Amino acid sequence: MGWFAPMCRAALLLSIALALSPSSRAEDGYDLWLRYKAVEPQWRQTYAASTRQLVLPQRQSPTLRAAADELRRGIGGLLDIDIGAAEKVTGDGALILGTPQSSPLIGKLALPLGGLAAGGYLIRSEQVDGHRVTVIAANDDIGVLYGAFRFLQRMQTRRSLDDLAIAASPQVERRLLNHWDNLDRSVERGYAGQSIWDWWRLPDYRHPRYTDYARANASIGINGTVLNNVNADADILTPRYIDKAAALAEVFRPYGLRVYLSARFSAPMEIGGLGTADPKDPAVRRWWKDKASEVYAAIPDFGGFLVKANSEGQPGPQDYGRSHADGANMLADALGPHGGVVMWRAFVYAHDNPEDRAKQAYSEFKPLDGQFADNVILQVKNGPIDFQPREPFHPLFGAMPKTPLMMEFQITKEYLGFATHLAYLGPLYEEVLEADTCRIDSPLPRGQIGRTADLGAEGARAAGERQGRRESVGPGPGERAADACTGQATVASVVDGSLHDYRHTGIAGVANIGRDRDWSGSVFNQANWYVFGRLAWNPQDSARAVAEDWLKMTFSPDSAFVQRAADMMMASREAVVDYMTPLGLAHLMATGHHYGPGPWVSELARPEWNPAYYHRADAGGIGFDRTAEGSNAAAQYAPPVAERFASRTAVPEKYLLWFHHLPWDHSMPSGRDLWAELVHRYDRGVAQVEKMRADWAQLEPFVDRQRFVQTGAFLAIQEREARWWRDASIAYFRKVSGRELPEGVRPPAYALEHYRGQSFPRAPGH
Amino acid sequence: MGWFAPMCRAALLLSIALALSPSSRAEDGYDLWLRYKAVEPQWRQTYAASTRQLVLPQRQSPTLRAAADELRRGIGGLLDIDIGAAEKVTGDGALILGTPQSSPLIGKLALPLGGLAAGGYLIRSEQVDGHRVTVIAANDDIGVLYGAFRFLQRMQTRRSLDDLAIAASPQVERRLLNHWDNLDRSVERGYAGQSIWDWWRLPDYRHPRYTDYARANASIGINGTVLNNVNADADILTPRYIDKAAALAEVFRPYGLRVYLSARFSAPMEIGGLGTADPKDPAVRRWWKDKASEVYAAIPDFGGFLVKANSEGQPGPQDYGRSHADGANMLADALGPHGGVVMWRAFVYAHDNPEDRAKQAYSEFKPLDGQFADNVILQVKNGPIDFQPREPFHPLFGAMPKTPLMMEFQITKEYLGFATHLAYLGPLYEEVLEADTCRIDSPLPRGQIGRTADLGAEGARAAGERQGRRESVGPGPGERAADACTGQATVASVVDGSLHDYRHTGIAGVANIGRDRDWSGSVFNQANWYVFGRLAWNPQDSARAVAEDWLKMTFSPDSAFVQRAADMMMASREAVVDYMTPLGLAHLMATGHHYGPGPWVSELARPEWNPAYYHRADAGGIGFDRTAEGSNAAAQYAPPVAERFASRTAVPEKYLLWFHHLPWDHSMPSGRDLWAELVHRYDRGVAQVEKMRADWAQLEPFVDRQRFVQTGAFLAIQEREARWWRDASIAYFRKVSGRELPEGVRPPAYALEHYRGQSFPRAPGH
Repeated sequence: MGWFAPMCRAALLLSIALALSPSSRAEDGYDLWLRYKAVEPQWRQTYAASTRQLVLPQRQSPTLRAAADELRRGIGGLLDIDIGAAEKVTGDGALILGTPQSSPLIGKLALPLGGLAAGGYLIRSEQVDGHRVTVIAANDDIGVLYGAFRFLQRMQTRRSLDDLAIAASPQVERRLLNHWDNLDRSVERGYAGQSIWDWWRLPDYRHPRYTDYARANASIGINGTVLNNVNADADILTPRYIDKAAALAEVFRPYGLRVYLSARFSAPMEIGGLGTADPKDPAVRRWWKDKASEVYAAIPDFGGFLVKANSEGQPGPQDYGRSHADGANMLADALGPHGGVVMWRAFVYAHDNPEDRAKQAYSEFKPLDGQFADNVILQVKNGPIDFQPREPFHPLFGAMPKTPLMMEFQITKEYLGFATHLAYLGPLYEEVLEADTCRIDSPLPRGQIGRTADLGAEGARAAGERQGRRESVGPGPGERAADACTGQATVASVVDGSLHDYRHTGIAGVANIGRDRDWSGSVFNQANWYVFGRLAWNPQDSARAVAEDWLKMTFSPDSAFVQRAADMMMASREAVVDYMTPLGLAHLMATGHHYGPGPWVSELARPEWNPAYYHRADAGGIGFDRTAEGSNAAAQYAPPVAERFASRTAVPEKYLLWFHHLPWDHSMPSGRDLWAELVHRYDRGVAQVEKMRADWAQLEPFVDRQRFVQTGAFLAIQEREARWWRDASIAYFRKVSGRELPEGVRPPAYALEHYRGQSFPRAPGH
Repeated sequence: MGWFAPMCRAALLLSIALALSPSSRAEDGYDLWLRYKAVEPQWRQTYAASTRQLVLPQRQSPTLRAAADELRRGIGGLLDIDIGAAEKVTGDGALILGTPQSSPLIGKLALPLGGLAAGGYLIRSEQVDGHRVTVIAANDDIGVLYGAFRFLQRMQTRRSLDDLAIAASPQVERRLLNHWDNLDRSVERGYAGQSIWDWWRLPDYRHPRYTDYARANASIGINGTVLNNVNADADILTPRYIDKAAALAEVFRPYGLRVYLSARFSAPMEIGGLGTADPKDPAVRRWWKDKASEVYAAIPDFGGFLVKANSEGQPGPQDYGRSHADGANMLADALGPHGGVVMWRAFVYAHDNPEDRAKQAYSEFKPLDGQFADNVILQVKNGPIDFQPREPFHPLFGAMPKTPLMMEFQITKEYLGFATHLAYLGPLYEEVLEADTCRIDSPLPRGQIGRTADLGAEGARAAGERQGRRESVGPGPGERAADACTGQATVASVVDGSLHDYRHTGIAGVANIGRDRDWSGSVFNQANWYVFGRLAWNPQDSARAVAEDWLKMTFSPDSAFVQRAADMMMASREAVVDYMTPLGLAHLMATGHHYGPGPWVSELARPEWNPAYYHRADAGGIGFDRTAEGSNAAAQYAPPVAERFASRTAVPEKYLLWFHHLPWDHSMPSGRDLWAELVHRYDRGVAQVEKMRADWAQLEPFVDRQRFVQTGAFLAIQEREARWWRDASIAYFRKVSGRELPEGVRPPAYALEHYRGQSFPRAPGH
């Protein structure tokens, strides 16, 4: 029989090749990080020893079925094994799934499930009836599903399945995507095509993609999704659309993904026929209560409302002389009886408010701390302006001990080159989460809810890696130490609730998902969805480690590939900072669509629409003075942080022009003056993109044709646009400063007027 | 070795199942009719005998390479054979490709290639060096590609590969898609998502889908595509967009697909900086000449301009007191030296023109016959109004012997239920093409260009079938015979140029293609793209035969499936006519988006925007009097046709209310009065949709899960909307007529006001 196997294998390989031959079978990105491509033979052998049979509870919930289906699919793809389902363990290598409630087998094992948070799980190597088995166990079915994905991830990333003792729990309760999707299927700031919600054909037709969306989210622990834009259309709360949302909720339910909706504050007027939306008006309050009941009748596990009020023209309680707390609490009253929450956005600023835009949210909300109802969460953007390539953390973090704050990150790259630029956001998220607020004024003891850290070896490694890199924004070396800056009051500790013992915790990411076949407009954008989910589950995780996992699952586990590609990803966001807004500059994008440079724009009606508002460059210097001599925004931070930010010498260089207006000849640590340093940063950003392109070209052996070519084409676009940013910015600042180009610096390709003359009326996402 | 084969086969089947298991491998419609699924074992054996080796010319053009690639892909999928390439015939079963110029082997065979038109091909069983071979030969490379698709189609439809003597030539020269795609990626009247043209990332990134688009078109002989909307944005002719169009043209070129653009008549003002677009102005003429040269420098095989002028608000020559001929001829002058054509749309009507809208195009263009330059083609919609579920043929067909007319069909279902309704348009196209214009006043002899009919057995069968069904619109039986109505002067004979010996021939279809994974918004909509291509190649083809081919390739060749599904398709368009606009009614859709019924709309500013303009119903009767007592539009047809249309008794019942205003108690051939007949038709339409749904449910064994479920969901939508149409229409006409419902008829589910109150501000495509 010796000749049989090779012949048959050849036949197998041929047949697989043929099955994959039509173009629709190409690697088009649809499968995301759940590709389940066959592992190498040596791995196949060892993994197969742990996947001989699948032992499931007899009564299976839809969630447990989803877990079993995913394991079958994954093991089928990775190992070419159709894993059989069994009622009991009949040999070594069984995989046992369930909760103590659903599986007597798991109940008997007396596993240490007590320390798990909701959704947490154990994956353990155990002995059952003398057989070597692996158990995926949890207290709730969704934990089992999360564990199943984690088990598959180990194979996808070529980790051992032996001697497992993994315990993992989410560190944040609400891990949400925010879709800025409109009812006409356009997506605000969406660069991956139209909305994946086919409102027109819902609820009648449930596209299979909805299920894959839920799978992908469950695989990284995302457990909620706000379906519609925060600039909300009131119609989402009409019966027609509630039915549509309910159909999606049904598809999502087995995957632990709850539906939330953005509510328009004036909906009682627009669809309720009332003459007011005053939150103190009894009819308005009644309307919202009835509406909440109506929503919950259709969606029993509805998560709650997300609200953007009194910001950028949206209606809100201040239209009636009421406070944000009045508005939020009214909605909270309506949702409370059903277990829903209100996520009230802190992103507010007003054009008729002369205060520094960076200060307005803090000024507005800080005084309201303690005034919000129990089921209100304040949703705060990572920085005080608006999702720039780099901002210091938002001063509200740490400043609202009595009000649960949740983080709002942006996954879609509104200000970071849209879909085509390669910019891995892991380092941005990480930088914010590990920032030390130095707020020790309210270090309440953490409650009882278990927060079991991830005990996997790779988790420990990641944490170690990260510790090494950690950069404090508190006092630097050689400065006066502040007791408050212990590294314990990080933004992450606010978000995971530990610093203030919040009753709710949450983290939201503005989705980069659309109808593009690859979901996110490029394969590398998928990494931003992925890392968001991973950091939402565990804000202590390492952006680099997550990137490596993602690369292995998405492309190839070959370490020669993974190391180089991860280097590229890790450097990519800093490159964007350099070629767009170096040294703490911000918001210099062309206005409206935010595509390309527009530092010269200064004549729009509202001051904070103008890039010139942000850079404040003139012949004398550049930068926004946020010290006591200026807007004093620095003072919104805890004293040790405020002190450092307000110091020209102590402020981290990356925030220099965010906090300081400095003369062009200001001397920089590099020895260059500020003007030369600025030019140097622009050049460095372009050089980094050139390097990324060259590096990618080297990775061709590891990547399929379609994704290789697409990524290469996008990097070429990025390189051209990075040059454009560099040239246009230098041309503009040279003119404003009246300075000569530093010696040896390449002049911009065109005169300033050329760059000012560019227009892009059809830029996407606007 | 007896046990080897079955074991190996089991392994193969398993591996195929696994390879297909991830969801992205589902039958999602992307592959269209080019799925190349494995044939049944008995067919595999017989087909394999004719596909043992692929003998290609040594020097291969991109088009010949595309042909070879497609054969490899198709044979790989259908037969699980990796067909080897060979330099010469070494045994039986070789497949030889090429032209006499590229292949000495084919040159030596002295095949009867002389009678082929451009793009035509032979597929013949021959002997070479004593071996049995199959030859796919043509005079041009694109003919070889078309032949390769045809060869594959024979296997896809389970036809024999033995004793082949196929000769096929396109009967129409320009077989074009018209994309109504805007530069912002929206699609006017598009129901399949955004435009497939990713203008934003062109020309840098060439999406693989562009190639699949070209393959699909080549497979049915489509040889040109107008990329942008006839309501054109002048920017398409700026250098930025010409570059983008050129990138697409490069992708399409190997597939014989030429790029055309819609030109905005006022472009010289909008992007040229001129103060006028007057076609007699020398600067304007110069601008267009320069622009044409610029386009041809980027796209050497550019096809030409499509122009919508002085219609629905578009600019045009009449703005300067010039005629349509003046405008068209100016553009023709610019394009002529490069070999381009102008396709000038005859779809014109003006709100300030009190003449019956159905008459205006004829009134405008008929007097211009003979005044157009040699390279102008007049593009005429199939009917005199606008792509209704049913219209009589356009009176210009047959009336412009000195001006080449090309047909404009609509493939997208603007007025036939958008993407979700199943409405196979083959019968609509066929009905128009086989209509007899009875114009024998200019029966010029046909030129020399060969128009070899398709000699395949199935072609003959199809022609026979069709002959049996053919219904003349000329005098009916028992009426005065008119010598003109011989069945020779059909609309098809106008379109294929034979009636008037046109110097150009063409047929255009307004595409139903978008970014939806299945291209067309539903799988069954793909059939409309397919049948358009097949009838453009051969306007004599049979809609039923084409439907059967499509079903075999798209779903299953099982005759139990094909016959039932084809019955369903063939009845589907008549069902739409019945539940929307029976008995010759037209344009009763809600205004603007055209979704759902709106017969009550009567107060819009422009009379011809109002459905009431079209049905003219009141207490006295219903219908548009187009006889001599009315608008006399009937008189625009040739006398025998005009006579029949103008006769209450002789007019085909399907056009009754198109030409006649009749009292509600008008006696119908069925014995019912007109009111009862109208109600009966609405009921019949709904019943047909109910039957389609029931029939589809029976077909589950033949259809994969994803497409079965989706089609079922869409049929459920169609059924609900058919009832809505029926109920709303009956409610309205009952009120207008003041009549009681006929006995036994189900009353509408709601009162008329309910239907009038419906609004759909987010209906797609508008």
